[in-house]
Amino acid sequence: MVSFEQFLIQDPLDNYGDRELYNTKFKPLIEAYNKRLEESILDEYKITLPKSRDELIAEQFDAVDYLYSAKLLSEREFEITDTSATEIVAKIAAGEWTAVEVFTAYAKRATIAHQFTNCAHELFTQEGLERAKELDAYQKENDGKTVGPLHGLPISLKEFVSLEGKITHGGYAAFVENVAEKDSVTAHILRKLGAVFYIRTTQPLTLMQLDSENNYSGFTKNPFNLLLSSGGSSSGEGAVVSFGGSTLGVGSDIGGSIRSPAAFSGCHGFRPTTRRISNLGNVANYSGQESVSPVTGPLARSVADLELFMKAYINSGKPWDMDTWSLPKLWKDVAKPDVKQLTIAVVKDDGLVRVSPPIRRALAEVVAKLEAAGVKIIELKQKNSKLAYETVHKMYCCDGNYESRSLIAKSGEPIPRLTQWSLNYGEGAKMYNCAENRQLNMIRDDLRNEYNDYFVANNVDFILSPAYNNVAPHSGEIYNWSYTSIFNILDLPTLAFQTGLKQDPELDVWTEEDKNYTYRSDLEQLENENYKPDEFKGAPIALQLSARRYFDEELLAAGKAIIDDILKVDLFKH
Amino acid sequence: MVSFEQFLIQDPLDNYGDRELYNTKFKPLIEAYNKRLEESILDEYKITLPKSRDELIAEQFDAVDYLYSAKLLSEREFEITDTSATEIVAKIAAGEWTAVEVFTAYAKRATIAHQFTNCAHELFTQEGLERAKELDAYQKENDGKTVGPLHGLPISLKEFVSLEGKITHGGYAAFVENVAEKDSVTAHILRKLGAVFYIRTTQPLTLMQLDSENNYSGFTKNPFNLLLSSGGSSSGEGAVVSFGGSTLGVGSDIGGSIRSPAAFSGCHGFRPTTRRISNLGNVANYSGQESVSPVTGPLARSVADLELFMKAYINSGKPWDMDTWSLPKLWKDVAKPDVKQLTIAVVKDDGLVRVSPPIRRALAEVVAKLEAAGVKIIELKQKNSKLAYETVHKMYCCDGNYESRSLIAKSGEPIPRLTQWSLNYGEGAKMYNCAENRQLNMIRDDLRNEYNDYFVANNVDFILSPAYNNVAPHSGEIYNWSYTSIFNILDLPTLAFQTGLKQDPELDVWTEEDKNYTYRSDLEQLENENYKPDEFKGAPIALQLSARRYFDEELLAAGKAIIDDILKVDLFKH
Repeated sequence: MVSFEQFLIQDPLDNYGDRELYNTKFKPLIEAYNKRLEESILDEYKITLPKSRDELIAEQFDAVDYLYSAKLLSEREFEITDTSATEIVAKIAAGEWTAVEVFTAYAKRATIAHQFTNCAHELFTQEGLERAKELDAYQKENDGKTVGPLHGLPISLKEFVSLEGKITHGGYAAFVENVAEKDSVTAHILRKLGAVFYIRTTQPLTLMQLDSENNYSGFTKNPFNLLLSSGGSSSGEGAVVSFGGSTLGVGSDIGGSIRSPAAFSGCHGFRPTTRRISNLGNVANYSGQESVSPVTGPLARSVADLELFMKAYINSGKPWDMDTWSLPKLWKDVAKPDVKQLTIAVVKDDGLVRVSPPIRRALAEVVAKLEAAGVKIIELKQKNSKLAYETVHKMYCCDGNYESRSLIAKSGEPIPRLTQWSLNYGEGAKMYNCAENRQLNMIRDDLRNEYNDYFVANNVDFILSPAYNNVAPHSGEIYNWSYTSIFNILDLPTLAFQTGLKQDPELDVWTEEDKNYTYRSDLEQLENENYKPDEFKGAPIALQLSARRYFDEELLAAGKAIIDDILKVDLFKH
Repeated sequence: MVSFEQFLIQDPLDNYGDRELYNTKFKPLIEAYNKRLEESILDEYKITLPKSRDELIAEQFDAVDYLYSAKLLSEREFEITDTSATEIVAKIAAGEWTAVEVFTAYAKRATIAHQFTNCAHELFTQEGLERAKELDAYQKENDGKTVGPLHGLPISLKEFVSLEGKITHGGYAAFVENVAEKDSVTAHILRKLGAVFYIRTTQPLTLMQLDSENNYSGFTKNPFNLLLSSGGSSSGEGAVVSFGGSTLGVGSDIGGSIRSPAAFSGCHGFRPTTRRISNLGNVANYSGQESVSPVTGPLARSVADLELFMKAYINSGKPWDMDTWSLPKLWKDVAKPDVKQLTIAVVKDDGLVRVSPPIRRALAEVVAKLEAAGVKIIELKQKNSKLAYETVHKMYCCDGNYESRSLIAKSGEPIPRLTQWSLNYGEGAKMYNCAENRQLNMIRDDLRNEYNDYFVANNVDFILSPAYNNVAPHSGEIYNWSYTSIFNILDLPTLAFQTGLKQDPELDVWTEEDKNYTYRSDLEQLENENYKPDEFKGAPIALQLSARRYFDEELLAAGKAIIDDILKVDLFKH
């Protein structure tokens, strides 16, 4: 048996908070905050759950299926919320649909999503409605002209994206009264381009979980199986976008935090290369950290919608006018490639943690379809995945978690289990010095060039890999980041995408051969023993596609060819 | 009186070398290295100096003027070496000139430059000639086709650019026997595009001087006045390009090291934004350092030639295929702007060190000409130049000079005065921890956004500023980096350009008002007292033009409009 505790460093990492302070001052403030959330649910969007939430969780309830079978929306609302962002902006621009009717449908679906999955920190649908009205009025007064390429799109935001005048806590209890003075750059741009905001979504404490736990909202649940996690750290984004409560979601990713919630919850998520989408103004614990950069990016139900976000944001939003970290590199139009000209390198196992049966099945099916379509497939056997894994973990903690610990210590809040897990990455609370940090950067740069050389020497266009060694795990039980964090340390643009397949307890079982397997590490054992076929019913099965650094446009263009045309995945259909 | 010593931190920074080891082992190896340099000067390129070198230095000898008056080259050689790189590649491509005749003329002029200025660490003109012959043969065998856009261009390299099979010491005694296993990425690209290598030029120990002193070559001298410094750290590049011994020079810049030698020695130098030209494979002491990135870039006698380098290198060289640090961002063609539409913000004084009379004169003349041409001029009063200066100094040394001190300690070599100066920057030998380093990065990012906001809010296209508070100083007496290093911490592309003016002992005197000036700091006093009108005869007077981050193309396009068309500077004319 492997235990959680054996992985923790012998350092009193959870002993620097003043629990008394938390209980007397911050906990009541959080309770008041949550009460306001509860009260902000409009009556017309309230539903009665078919059973108690605990019962639904226990029975692995599929909330998406129920949404349709119980007809929780009108036909018109289904029509609108099952239309892509790309089509919605076109319809509004053409005067076919109004921003208000689009907004109302999404606000309702998002509020229902929250009631099932616990995906929201804040709901302000009334304010969103006012904004939608203003957009309609603007369009009417300006001969049909829209304010920008995202005119009227209901867009959800991870909570840490600052919104002017609103509490922005970033998951920290200490920030429960922190009112943002202005919009973050990304919120400013999206607003300017016509987005309508109405929901801010959950994220775990310190952001350093592929799960969702913090002291505000506990766990966010998977819409397709409420027993499971929605992933993280863009936890609420995964849930609300997959449930269809948002046209586009804004997440962030430093170790998998866009891709994990997209993959687990049932939508697509794109981690762009660094410096294309601004992080400026977000409330987070990575100030001045440059070894492995956080990246902001979109979640959506189609690759074309991810493209819409990227192109509009970059080319019309010009983030470099507000944030010099952002590159003035326009999003270029790239045509869908001829798949017969593509070479894709497949990672079947990263050498660290064996994938579970559903992932293995999806990999085999996808590879077979790609080969049938004429894609050249080669296998990538990663040499240095352990070095990459250990190095990126050291990077995450190389300030001895100074910043995140300081922010936690301010309120004395308890540390959730999986935040404690990641605070123990690398050397935990050990403060690296500047020269040691540079050593890590040098290892990273060597790794980046090793992979780049592989791409160039083998004419590889993309890498196909698991997005995690399993489908969405149970809440609180997500330990291994190796399949996602490798692309953070390499800084490769990576698309987590739905294969269209779902976990099947009959099909996706460990074989006899699997049972005789000798674990390569305790981590692998911990992860693999967590997969029991009966407990992951209907979990979406996703994979990842990665391109060379800054080949973001080529990646999404190929994503359309592969996901839409070859795999024929359509997340708007139920 | 201000003394050098008062600026040094009380830390035994020069006491970690084993001088005995240096004298017995490394010094003899350096002497042998220099003997090979001496012997590599071909007889046909040897000249007899008109007087002893010491006498020439004492009398502020103008070697460039002598080159012409003493007719050290044939008419044909003058014609070739006073032709721009842009025209040379066109003439070779058209079959009008051969690579061999071009090369021979430049090899001769470069070798003469070295005999006056001491600009070379290595000369291999025989090898260059063989390469030129191969290029001619290739062209002949391939129906006039060239190998690339730099076919046949004699290009000089700062010594630390690794060349396969050649000793590459980067100024360190410890590396006197370090034979590079392969070309650095930049050398590889230039070679592939058709460059001919033949000279590797001087740079100071640790690169951290705006001068040239190391234990190999001592000082490199200014071709227009041998008493003065050629600048640094791309010291030899400044001298050889300004003397006309190279069509294009490759330098690097972390605090002014391309711009200072260009400005001082008499040519133009371009510090691009980071990540456009690769540093990979260079022998230097900044591994893994990301707070203020070193930048590789070109020196030349025309802005069009700088553009030629950038466009050929980026668009045909594709450095991102070899080095993922390099951005796959093509060099775009930007037309010369209508100068009447331009707004330029002028820095007349950075609040730290007052500029000397010749710089003041050049600023006034250039501003007058720009205004006459219709450029809108506003004055930029920098608020945070002191913070920027102190922060970038801390960044230079924030590993406690760990890497450079380790490399010096290996040989026990003596530390030149100005290297000692910069080892005392910031907090000298104090090792910052990771969190402290991040604090510096946060200050830097705030500064970057402060300047960017200024550009955007005021519709400013470019900043015009002094490249230093003086013309080229005497060797060993360059202390203040504030006018150049500000653009390193801001990471703004910056062009150091010749105004066409030269120092004039009659015109460029301190006024009576100047003499009553109260110094704002000891540093200012040290710098200002160094300027005595009679000792800077004929020194070239340069300024700087900076653009927004990654607006490199716009900067060079405007550089042509300003320098060629408005100022009518022509460095190919004598």
